[in-house]
Amino acid sequence: MKQRIAVVEKILGANDRLAEENRRRLDGAGVFGLNLMASPGAGKTSLIERTLAALVPELRVGVIDGDVATSIDADRAAAAGATAVQINTGGECHLDATMLQGGLDALDLEALDVLLVENVGNLICPAAFSLGTHQSALIASIPEGDDKPYKYPTMYRGVNALVINKIDLLPYVPFDLAYFRRGVELLNPGLVTFEVSCRTGQGLEAWVEWLRMQVSSLERVG
Amino acid sequence: MKQRIAVVEKILGANDRLAEENRRRLDGAGVFGLNLMASPGAGKTSLIERTLAALVPELRVGVIDGDVATSIDADRAAAAGATAVQINTGGECHLDATMLQGGLDALDLEALDVLLVENVGNLICPAAFSLGTHQSALIASIPEGDDKPYKYPTMYRGVNALVINKIDLLPYVPFDLAYFRRGVELLNPGLVTFEVSCRTGQGLEAWVEWLRMQVSSLERVG
Repeated sequence: MKQRIAVVEKILGANDRLAEENRRRLDGAGVFGLNLMASPGAGKTSLIERTLAALVPELRVGVIDGDVATSIDADRAAAAGATAVQINTGGECHLDATMLQGGLDALDLEALDVLLVENVGNLICPAAFSLGTHQSALIASIPEGDDKPYKYPTMYRGVNALVINKIDLLPYVPFDLAYFRRGVELLNPGLVTFEVSCRTGQGLEAWVEWLRMQVSSLERVG
Repeated sequence: MKQRIAVVEKILGANDRLAEENRRRLDGAGVFGLNLMASPGAGKTSLIERTLAALVPELRVGVIDGDVATSIDADRAAAAGATAVQINTGGECHLDATMLQGGLDALDLEALDVLLVENVGNLICPAAFSLGTHQSALIASIPEGDDKPYKYPTMYRGVNALVINKIDLLPYVPFDLAYFRRGVELLNPGLVTFEVSCRTGQGLEAWVEWLRMQVSSLERVG
């Protein structure tokens, strides 16, 4: 067990150093990077499609899609107007900084303003690996149930923004929004939260506006 | 990378040996063990509650609940009539054979006919670790989307039964059942599949009947 922990710590240390390098590359090119995490089917790709529809061509957006298999997500992002790169993790349950480095190598960063990184669908492992993006956002989904903050605390603790998707399904599933938000507040007080439906378009303006503000903050610093 | 792969192979080899031991203990006590896997919020706990309502007291059912944090699920299983044990994985994204061994130690196996193991909510990592149960079942969920077999092939390939939950949400979300089932058929031809709604109760009789048959097959062998 001790040996295993030592190996894990070594891997995480190397990951953090590489994440810093990735951040420097994004900063150097003036690209705002966002790490998007969620469980399978919460709506990462749909949120990216909606975001692209709102931001392109005003901003130049790149998408790096992490998946265990297939290029379904990158194809959808490309169709929606992004420069998209697919990373197949070969069975790994999360993106890490090395994989993101590979994605950055495949993009012309000077030709981008924003980079959306779609992590592997998983509420656990991606939380342990920084990629070097400026911010991270979690997409929760109404049909997943209202107990998820309590059950996946590390993920909820570590993100800079929360998107609650599929809000249009509230009438059809048992979901206590107050209980859910109480759990979020305990773990990540004051977390910026958006209630949206990527299907109907409800609530997406606020999310897009937040993203625009992040990009222009970076530009002011740069 | 080579070192990392060697460590992973060593871990998996040790896991398999321990899984065989777990299986021998279940066989010795005449307990049918089922490993239930799904992404977060697909309905593992709800399916267990419905199953308990149908099987108890006709059969004596134990539940081992794996979670990163909290005992919400074990509490729900105990309230529904099971002897329930919670295993907090301490951040790990899956159950392994060692953790199941700990769960078996905490149960009186001679007093059980069935053991339902609720794995951690995750479509990737649990597929790599056998626990020693007799069968494994995957719960898919309509709002997760119809592309999940294509995106998580290892999980869909490895299971003995598939429960498609939240079938009552079909009118409210885009989900092409034929496309989904085609993906399943490619990966796991002839897979036993149940379309159910744990909320309305629809389709659950067939699932419970399948489970009953598995238990009585084991009894005939034993």
